[in-house]
Amino acid sequence: MDNITIKKLLTKVKKGDITIENALQSFKELPYKDLGFAKVDTHRTIRCGFPEVIFCAGKTPEQVLKIAGQIIKHGSDLLATRANKEIYKCISQQYKNARYNEKAGTIVIKKSRSKKKKGLILIVTAGTSDIPVAEEARETAEIMGNNVKVLYDAGVAGIHRLLSNQNDIMTANVIIVIAGMEGALASVVGGMVARPVIGVPTSIGYGTSFGGVTPLLAMLNSCAANVTVVNIDNGFGAAYVASLINSTK
Amino acid sequence: MDNITIKKLLTKVKKGDITIENALQSFKELPYKDLGFAKVDTHRTIRCGFPEVIFCAGKTPEQVLKIAGQIIKHGSDLLATRANKEIYKCISQQYKNARYNEKAGTIVIKKSRSKKKKGLILIVTAGTSDIPVAEEARETAEIMGNNVKVLYDAGVAGIHRLLSNQNDIMTANVIIVIAGMEGALASVVGGMVARPVIGVPTSIGYGTSFGGVTPLLAMLNSCAANVTVVNIDNGFGAAYVASLINSTK
Amino acid sequence: MDNITIKKLLTKVKKGDITIENALQSFKELPYKDLGFAKVDTHRTIRCGFPEVIFCAGKTPEQVLKIAGQIIKHGSDLLATRANKEIYKCISQQYKNARYNEKAGTIVIKKSRSKKKKGLILIVTAGTSDIPVAEEARETAEIMGNNVKVLYDAGVAGIHRLLSNQNDIMTANVIIVIAGMEGALASVVGGMVARPVIGVPTSIGYGTSFGGVTPLLAMLNSCAANVTVVNIDNGFGAAYVASLINSTK
Amino acid sequence: MDNITIKKLLTKVKKGDITIENALQSFKELPYKDLGFAKVDTHRTIRCGFPEVIFCAGKTPEQVLKIAGQIIKHGSDLLATRANKEIYKCISQQYKNARYNEKAGTIVIKKSRSKKKKGLILIVTAGTSDIPVAEEARETAEIMGNNVKVLYDAGVAGIHRLLSNQNDIMTANVIIVIAGMEGALASVVGGMVARPVIGVPTSIGYGTSFGGVTPLLAMLNSCAANVTVVNIDNGFGAAYVASLINSTK
Amino acid sequence: MDNITIKKLLTKVKKGDITIENALQSFKELPYKDLGFAKVDTHRTIRCGFPEVIFCAGKTPEQVLKIAGQIIKHGSDLLATRANKEIYKCISQQYKNARYNEKAGTIVIKKSRSKKKKGLILIVTAGTSDIPVAEEARETAEIMGNNVKVLYDAGVAGIHRLLSNQNDIMTANVIIVIAGMEGALASVVGGMVARPVIGVPTSIGYGTSFGGVTPLLAMLNSCAANVTVVNIDNGFGAAYVASLINSTK
Amino acid sequence: MDNITIKKLLTKVKKGDITIENALQSFKELPYKDLGFAKVDTHRTIRCGFPEVIFCAGKTPEQVLKIAGQIIKHGSDLLATRANKEIYKCISQQYKNARYNEKAGTIVIKKSRSKKKKGLILIVTAGTSDIPVAEEARETAEIMGNNVKVLYDAGVAGIHRLLSNQNDIMTANVIIVIAGMEGALASVVGGMVARPVIGVPTSIGYGTSFGGVTPLLAMLNSCAANVTVVNIDNGFGAAYVASLINSTK
Amino acid sequence: MDNITIKKLLTKVKKGDITIENALQSFKELPYKDLGFAKVDTHRTIRCGFPEVIFCAGKTPEQVLKIAGQIIKHGSDLLATRANKEIYKCISQQYKNARYNEKAGTIVIKKSRSKKKKGLILIVTAGTSDIPVAEEARETAEIMGNNVKVLYDAGVAGIHRLLSNQNDIMTANVIIVIAGMEGALASVVGGMVARPVIGVPTSIGYGTSFGGVTPLLAMLNSCAANVTVVNIDNGFGAAYVASLINSTK
Amino acid sequence: MDNITIKKLLTKVKKGDITIENALQSFKELPYKDLGFAKVDTHRTIRCGFPEVIFCAGKTPEQVLKIAGQIIKHGSDLLATRANKEIYKCISQQYKNARYNEKAGTIVIKKSRSKKKKGLILIVTAGTSDIPVAEEARETAEIMGNNVKVLYDAGVAGIHRLLSNQNDIMTANVIIVIAGMEGALASVVGGMVARPVIGVPTSIGYGTSFGGVTPLLAMLNSCAANVTVVNIDNGFGAAYVASLINSTK
Repeated sequence: MDNITIKKLLTKVKKGDITIENALQSFKELPYKDLGFAKVDTHRTIRCGFPEVIFCAGKTPEQVLKIAGQIIKHGSDLLATRANKEIYKCISQQYKNARYNEKAGTIVIKKSRSKKKKGLILIVTAGTSDIPVAEEARETAEIMGNNVKVLYDAGVAGIHRLLSNQNDIMTANVIIVIAGMEGALASVVGGMVARPVIGVPTSIGYGTSFGGVTPLLAMLNSCAANVTVVNIDNGFGAAYVASLINSTK
Repeated sequence: MDNITIKKLLTKVKKGDITIENALQSFKELPYKDLGFAKVDTHRTIRCGFPEVIFCAGKTPEQVLKIAGQIIKHGSDLLATRANKEIYKCISQQYKNARYNEKAGTIVIKKSRSKKKKGLILIVTAGTSDIPVAEEARETAEIMGNNVKVLYDAGVAGIHRLLSNQNDIMTANVIIVIAGMEGALASVVGGMVARPVIGVPTSIGYGTSFGGVTPLLAMLNSCAANVTVVNIDNGFGAAYVASLINSTK
Repeated sequence: MDNITIKKLLTKVKKGDITIENALQSFKELPYKDLGFAKVDTHRTIRCGFPEVIFCAGKTPEQVLKIAGQIIKHGSDLLATRANKEIYKCISQQYKNARYNEKAGTIVIKKSRSKKKKGLILIVTAGTSDIPVAEEARETAEIMGNNVKVLYDAGVAGIHRLLSNQNDIMTANVIIVIAGMEGALASVVGGMVARPVIGVPTSIGYGTSFGGVTPLLAMLNSCAANVTVVNIDNGFGAAYVASLINSTK
Repeated sequence: MDNITIKKLLTKVKKGDITIENALQSFKELPYKDLGFAKVDTHRTIRCGFPEVIFCAGKTPEQVLKIAGQIIKHGSDLLATRANKEIYKCISQQYKNARYNEKAGTIVIKKSRSKKKKGLILIVTAGTSDIPVAEEARETAEIMGNNVKVLYDAGVAGIHRLLSNQNDIMTANVIIVIAGMEGALASVVGGMVARPVIGVPTSIGYGTSFGGVTPLLAMLNSCAANVTVVNIDNGFGAAYVASLINSTK
Repeated sequence: MDNITIKKLLTKVKKGDITIENALQSFKELPYKDLGFAKVDTHRTIRCGFPEVIFCAGKTPEQVLKIAGQIIKHGSDLLATRANKEIYKCISQQYKNARYNEKAGTIVIKKSRSKKKKGLILIVTAGTSDIPVAEEARETAEIMGNNVKVLYDAGVAGIHRLLSNQNDIMTANVIIVIAGMEGALASVVGGMVARPVIGVPTSIGYGTSFGGVTPLLAMLNSCAANVTVVNIDNGFGAAYVASLINSTK
Repeated sequence: MDNITIKKLLTKVKKGDITIENALQSFKELPYKDLGFAKVDTHRTIRCGFPEVIFCAGKTPEQVLKIAGQIIKHGSDLLATRANKEIYKCISQQYKNARYNEKAGTIVIKKSRSKKKKGLILIVTAGTSDIPVAEEARETAEIMGNNVKVLYDAGVAGIHRLLSNQNDIMTANVIIVIAGMEGALASVVGGMVARPVIGVPTSIGYGTSFGGVTPLLAMLNSCAANVTVVNIDNGFGAAYVASLINSTK
Repeated sequence: MDNITIKKLLTKVKKGDITIENALQSFKELPYKDLGFAKVDTHRTIRCGFPEVIFCAGKTPEQVLKIAGQIIKHGSDLLATRANKEIYKCISQQYKNARYNEKAGTIVIKKSRSKKKKGLILIVTAGTSDIPVAEEARETAEIMGNNVKVLYDAGVAGIHRLLSNQNDIMTANVIIVIAGMEGALASVVGGMVARPVIGVPTSIGYGTSFGGVTPLLAMLNSCAANVTVVNIDNGFGAAYVASLINSTK
Repeated sequence: MDNITIKKLLTKVKKGDITIENALQSFKELPYKDLGFAKVDTHRTIRCGFPEVIFCAGKTPEQVLKIAGQIIKHGSDLLATRANKEIYKCISQQYKNARYNEKAGTIVIKKSRSKKKKGLILIVTAGTSDIPVAEEARETAEIMGNNVKVLYDAGVAGIHRLLSNQNDIMTANVIIVIAGMEGALASVVGGMVARPVIGVPTSIGYGTSFGGVTPLLAMLNSCAANVTVVNIDNGFGAAYVASLINSTK
């Protein structure tokens, strides 16, 4: 497109349909309007099956509804995260096919029939309290077309739960480990596999868990070299990256 | 192997060559010696072209030499990180083919002719001071058989440097962004691509950079959802994960 | 005024209307009542078109009303920040021309017809959630007589939005950059201009954003040398300084 | 310059000296080399009298010498900050006119005869230990063509020192306040003037000064609304911004 | 039990009732289901008189009821911590013998008649506000079959209260010291005895108590060498460890 | 009293009314009940006119009432701090002479006619929001029999307010400086006098005031050597120490 | 002893050899000189086989030698921790039987033939770098007469090393877990046993390990309830408490 | 003096020796040169026997010598703190009566024969490592003319040492408590007396002592209400305030 624009402009210059001064002005404005990477945004959606996402925290139901309307108009799948019941009520009145996962705080409106990606994304949590973050990750990974399994409540204090699911752990292409408290699970899982592990520290705990800082630090200092980390409670981000890893370039 | 061991044992039981009591004893000891995931360590090396790595910080040259000997005996490639000149001197006397990258602090002894992996790992740094960490990442990614490119000194305060290398950025399968100070580069690069970006905060800076905490926090809070993070100055870890991502399962 | 007071006193001394002892006593008390810089407060208002400001947080509607009354009696413009609806209701009953910006939390009562200052103050935000802080800045800058433009939702993860507004960015005399999360926007904008950039970190984010500490640290460590910083969410302070910069001495 | 380049190209197109295809190729490469804001760098130097700056920390004398050579070749003034004696020795052997301010850690090679800017930049320090940071600021402000005055050792515990220099404080267009310990000086000076005050916290102090964090926090929370802040010990940055404020747009 | 399982399997192999291949499959699954240390869980209950514990924070009454049902079905004592009144109401409708300690936030359903352990566990608090944590500890220690005494409100600012109870302090086998504010009590008690002291920092205090961080740090730095520490407000954990110490191996 | 107890015991021993063994037993229990410094508590009340104090935070109205009853029974003045309206209602039903200072959160029941101490305690606040803490300090200092003056809203950004009250500042025997934000007031006042200054940081502020940590740090690092510091918002503690200083030994 | 002193005094009173007034004076001084718990210090040594310990950090060789002389004169075993070579040289010249463990930084002079305590103390480390802390713990535990085993380099990233030593882990009466980085080992070991686990975080690591704060936080938040924690690198303290636990009361 | 200056000026006005305009000019300059509180500096010295103090940290021997010369010329006593041997050598060559306390890092040159103040200042330390800070306090308190006693190594883990010195503790007018580690000593001493206690946290300790932050926090949260705090290791400041308290107004 922008090649075409430039060609047209140069042709006009050649023909004398435009003065050099005016052409110069157009060129000065050009690069900031149509840079290649701006178009990437559009490409990205098509190539990855990635839906537009609304982060609902701090938005009113009306604001969310309005943004949702624009996304759906473009034919995309919709994923809304951190959505409370009130937002869901507002959305579902207009979009009957909206599906709400209360634990996850996600609303999903799925249009496309994106093919499942081949690799498995495994989501492991340390405790039952980490499940909301895990559900956000699961919803995200699934709407992005991944094959997802979950393994909940497999904390290291009862390491046999982890070991008895060794098969899934070994099979996964990417593993998302979600843990609060001391976050040791990421290291233990990381030591068991030769695939990327994405650690999601959660704000579960009390006292010196400092709202998730403790598992965050633990995961950043993991003795297993295959662990990278996202922000506290960021189940969405972990699943988004996992899905990118799971996509063949 | 351990399947074979178990089969032999079972065969002995069947034949009566061993009492059930003695077989039971063997089984009780078995899982802790030959668990599936222990063997993974060996598999991992073969499958990923991953060499054994020695983290030299806090080790004497003699200790490093001794560990290196064991690794080389098993026919593996050797990668030593955080190695000072003294360690290199000690290693190179015994192993003439040891190669030292002084900036990176790495020693490499390459035996295998591992095929290059197809995907490109691009390593981008914000400033010239981030180069040591980047070199550690480069050496790690290369010995693991990846196709690696570097783009140094492309900080956001002169964003045109970044834009003029847009092609490499677009082509890469994984991007490692290495930045100190405010670490904004990870977000800007993250916003340009639809591939995983691994942020490495560096301890470059002064005052409120707090030895790398500031870029670490910035990267964890990136407005680009495709950024995951490793520990401060952990060039090795970033490259290790990038290589895993770059490997087809 | 205080020159006049001193002159009067000296004249009385000269005329013998007051003893030297009594004059001495008056002089001892004088400097603490009428120091030059105390008068500056008054001068400041006249010269800069700067209104009195009420920081409403922690004040009752009645307290705000009372202070507002004193300001208006002196003929000043009024700016109240961090004002909730209840405060506005109380103020507007008495002052019908009070204007409330709910997003900004500001109440404005404008009396003077101060001429617009020539230079442009541009206010840029990273995300939509930063808008309340930006609105506080805009209201402050406008009542201080500045020419103000806003550029909302121009975060670095979609850097083309920023680039497509390059003209305003280039034209501004001072730029206020308002960003939460990782605050990278200040560095990117700072790298684009040769004018002062005032960074306002916002408390937008979760987990390791630590209520705005992360963008604060990022802005303090900006690789762009033209960035100075104010307290988290301090839109008022940023606009106040921007207006001072925009005033010819 | 790049306007000229574009004009030449357009003229060639007009004349038919170059095919449209080839011109297109040139334009595609153009924006990343000569983007508007990249040229600003050049403009900036001319308009503000701003020299190129080398941040010497972590660079070898040879590296600094090499970068200095490139800057001087372009006819710019040179400012090197955080330079130790060894670096100075290396630079001065080649450039006899290099001037070293040991306290400031700055090396200056001045070529241009930039006219003094009219406004006064006043640099105030709380204690004698803050002087190195102040000297870095003074050297920076002076090579950028500003009229600079210094007022050293005027801490708030002896507030009469400050008051007895009230005239300079009142006259200044911008004031840089440099203070360690509790950093109260920024608030007191800020309360005395209606001009921008740039606070530079210093790492002077012990115990709970935490290497400058305490005065940084104090300045960020200043009860005077005209204070903005730069990183700890960042005398260069403060002077750079002060000079921009001091420049008429 | 799992010894029995293995024996049965081996016997089948011996008899030819199962093929070696199928036995192999069973063995591959075995270690991850019935590892020795997994059985420890069961052993632990029997040997220590340790009941199953439900940490109620973040669980609904229904969830707690469901888990409680499973525990009681296995014949264990039940201890629920951090239980509010609503949870108690729900539990007590089904289990009439449930006992609620409102201060402690504990629900206890005791089935077994575990013999008292011989050693004394003494629980000392600094102030009356620390009592809820102390009560959680007391309930935990008692249901685990310990002989428990409490000494409340014995803070160091009135050290005579402590000294007048010297006899109990001297007699105890383990002492749990529960203190907020500056947590000095742990050091003073620690200096008085030659037995293990477990410090429980509490979140009692304001300002720089930082929700219990201050007493935590104080206890970790105790000048008495016999003090170990658990998380803030973790009365349960302290009592659990105290009970283990009090059990003869 | 305990001297009398010992004398009685010794007399009994002398008279043979008690065996030496029994006396020994009594003495063994004695020191921990009636240690010299325990009696100090009683002495302290008499000598300093210091009333018993109830810290109401976290106590129910009934608990406060009960403790108050015991204090009043002993004929002491009563001071209750951090008391809400509900507590006051409960207290005032029983004690009609109870006086509530709602801003301060204090309840006072004064019985004794303690003579005013001669020295003046001056309480200075930076802003109007610091007044609740100041009122707590004033009530405490007054019930302890001190001569108290207050100087509210004298922050350093308008230093003339401070200077115009120089006489009170100069006259005071102890000064309590109460400030939030950057806490600079303590240093400025400290620099003006040669008497002890007690700094009380307050939790007033937002963003990087971190609930009072910023003024706390500022006061600890005061460039005035006569400043000591108490916990955030601890108006009671400051006044208590000020009163001790104001008492002649 | 002090019983005897009191008896003598009482006998003198009875006999009239001392006036009641004088006896009273003696009693007033008594409790502060010979309190029961002061004698405990002596008892403690005898009962627990606990030697006097010299913490050498910050002491000169001469100071250590002098203190050592006093300890040895009393016939106690000597343990000196944090001792460098220079201190050892100084000590060993005088005491030929002094034994130095360079890794541990301990000097031991053993006189007594204390019987081994029955229970096993197991010391487990995560990495080879944790060994110095472990050696300090081992030396401490051994001189206190315990039966000690060590299991070094058993970090969770290679969990099979831990599992293959399950027997020792199961047998131990107390386990000391020493780990830097993310400290996950304490939770994993804690989950395997029903005995007290004492976590020692070490300062091993870089970046966000913050000198041991990360494993400290991890251990305090352990999902295993049997973990208590000591200060960073405090091998001595852990062993001291372990030995107390291992002593039958 | 300045009263005299003003009188002279007024007399000249009365006599007509100076015009009112010129007198006005003199008065305008006057307050900033001779403000009342500036003179306090001089008064302070005379009244409190307070010498000028040089804080040597970061000053060269020559700088210290130069400042010392000015002080001595004015006839004041000299106190230099944080002075190393090199500084002492330089000072003592010129001033033979300079006395160096190496532990304290203080140099004292005493001229005046100030009378001892009546009240006792007691300095108590927790451990032997706190003695340098205590010696700085002692030297400061003594040169300010106080009656000083020291009680070293009286930490709370052996509380009998404290109790056996109860008489001095009870007698003191002000107590300075100097402690590192957990700083519990301040609370225990504070609980024993009804006089002001000034806590000095020291940087003694390791790991989570965080260079003195732990005892600082402990002292700020003391359960004894008579404790105020100064900066870490600030023995000088504590003694300075103690001396002010000890001076009758």
